[in-house]
Amino acid sequence: MARRIGKYTIFYDTPPVIEGYASVAGKKESEGPLGKMFDRVFDDEYLGQDSFEKAESEMQRQVLSIAMEKSGVTPADIDILFAGDLLNQCSASTFGLGDYNIPYVGIYGACSTMALGLCMASSFVEGGLAQRTACVTSSHFCSSERQFRLPLEYGGQRTPTAQWTVTGAGSVIVTSLKNTGIKIRGITLGRTVDKGINDVNNMGAAMAPAAADTIKTFLTETATSPTDYDLILTGDLGQVGSRLLCEILQNDGIDISKVHSDCGTNIFFDKKQDVHSGGSGCGCSASVLCSKILNNMTDGNLKKVLFCATGSLHSPTTVLQNQTIPGISHLVYLEV
Amino acid sequence: MARRIGKYTIFYDTPPVIEGYASVAGKKESEGPLGKMFDRVFDDEYLGQDSFEKAESEMQRQVLSIAMEKSGVTPADIDILFAGDLLNQCSASTFGLGDYNIPYVGIYGACSTMALGLCMASSFVEGGLAQRTACVTSSHFCSSERQFRLPLEYGGQRTPTAQWTVTGAGSVIVTSLKNTGIKIRGITLGRTVDKGINDVNNMGAAMAPAAADTIKTFLTETATSPTDYDLILTGDLGQVGSRLLCEILQNDGIDISKVHSDCGTNIFFDKKQDVHSGGSGCGCSASVLCSKILNNMTDGNLKKVLFCATGSLHSPTTVLQNQTIPGISHLVYLEV
Repeated sequence: MARRIGKYTIFYDTPPVIEGYASVAGKKESEGPLGKMFDRVFDDEYLGQDSFEKAESEMQRQVLSIAMEKSGVTPADIDILFAGDLLNQCSASTFGLGDYNIPYVGIYGACSTMALGLCMASSFVEGGLAQRTACVTSSHFCSSERQFRLPLEYGGQRTPTAQWTVTGAGSVIVTSLKNTGIKIRGITLGRTVDKGINDVNNMGAAMAPAAADTIKTFLTETATSPTDYDLILTGDLGQVGSRLLCEILQNDGIDISKVHSDCGTNIFFDKKQDVHSGGSGCGCSASVLCSKILNNMTDGNLKKVLFCATGSLHSPTTVLQNQTIPGISHLVYLEV
Repeated sequence: MARRIGKYTIFYDTPPVIEGYASVAGKKESEGPLGKMFDRVFDDEYLGQDSFEKAESEMQRQVLSIAMEKSGVTPADIDILFAGDLLNQCSASTFGLGDYNIPYVGIYGACSTMALGLCMASSFVEGGLAQRTACVTSSHFCSSERQFRLPLEYGGQRTPTAQWTVTGAGSVIVTSLKNTGIKIRGITLGRTVDKGINDVNNMGAAMAPAAADTIKTFLTETATSPTDYDLILTGDLGQVGSRLLCEILQNDGIDISKVHSDCGTNIFFDKKQDVHSGGSGCGCSASVLCSKILNNMTDGNLKKVLFCATGSLHSPTTVLQNQTIPGISHLVYLEV
């Protein structure tokens, strides 16, 4: 049974197990520090498709296929699939995953989608609503840039706070049918946090307050401290947002600096790859979690991890209408 | 505990109860057959805001507020909020509901969102992950038309199969803390169904196969027949899609014609209001369910209802890229 600890945190008495996981990534990501850890990398940014959007769908199709293969399961073995992405109307997921014929729940958490998907996938398993679930998400530099910012051909200058949308995808399969492996011990579902940031080229600053809110909530509700964990991993705050997160929590008397890392600062070489503040996109936290982090947990190098992906809940329309940029962060407590 | 009946259907042994619900709608909807049943109607399509998108957010804010008021609960009493809408990056929900400070799960099911939200809200309650959840969705004629089709000023001619996006919103509050009232007995999560339809002005045809798939799955997995229910209510198939749904199921030996109705054909006066095939949008099934249908269940005029909202999972980009239009339908079994 699940136990609610406070308003936001749910602990699982019978923690679901991560049965398998997979990551795929693009060429630039393959040249970064995690390049050798992805299950598959693509030199062709089109993946043989005729548009970047279809290429993103193809990444989702392949990453779920690899995750199933590594888990030794077929689509018929998966009770529910949770997926979403950044494209308008979450179309990368729709078109990438439809052929699998799995009961499908579309989710939207912007770049927090991997964490949101894990929250849903584990809740349904722990609540006895499913025995095996899967979650998938992705982002693609080319489909995101042209949808959210500028035409690729424009070649606009990027600000120092800007982040580079990761071309990549991740998938995790969660089950109650096994009891060894990496366990999902609990979750904290975040709330929307809006501190009035309105610069789409500084999403780290827009999302950091949400990450701070969720991490603080989790630590408070569980009465634990940052050093009780081996790693507190945020999604895609980048360098600017990571610094801000540590500062916000420090002001609340919480020092996470010794155990904090961010997927956006893990995936690219800082200066050599010219990504400014770091990586971003649903595919950033998804591909980093589903490579380096879960590998390290499997190998026993990491035991207790708080995975708190972060999402920036704006659209090009809301930005043009002078709305601020609300952030959200969902937390997943992983243990091996 | 939840029991899985077949691959798609989940039955609840301790069915969550609908504690309260509310609907709001626009001026045209208020002039339709259900006009007197909505909790609030707006003569001003801007709701005092400076854009149609902000107006849609305001509808979500108000409809949740009314649902809470009718249920006698406050935001602090709600454990999790599930919401989504048609706008890019689900921004109507983000900006409409953020201030309530409720743990927030963004969902995307296009026009099936009300059913998807009820599936999530009831699953979390029945699985013991929450005691009280809420779901919200909306659509607005003006924000949808200009995003999905043409600028409003263009005044384009509409085809006979076209539907009219409903300006409206609905919200339901679900709980395990009560045991009398309308109960959610079970759900069937749909899969993506793509029969190759590619006409965005004939979404009824794109969605009907998905509704047929989900209804057939539910009836097969529960070994029941259409006449075991007082009403099988689809979301927004309109006249064209409803006819098609009945035909598809008839070909499979299932006759739902005696108990079938569709929210899209309920909300407007057929010819007088010039809506062609009927209403559509997330707000269509949400506002019809949360007025006439749940009122009738409360009054005892309807006892067993299968609510199967339908979603058309396209985006303007996928349509321009010559993709077909996949549909999805999620089913909620309501009983009083």
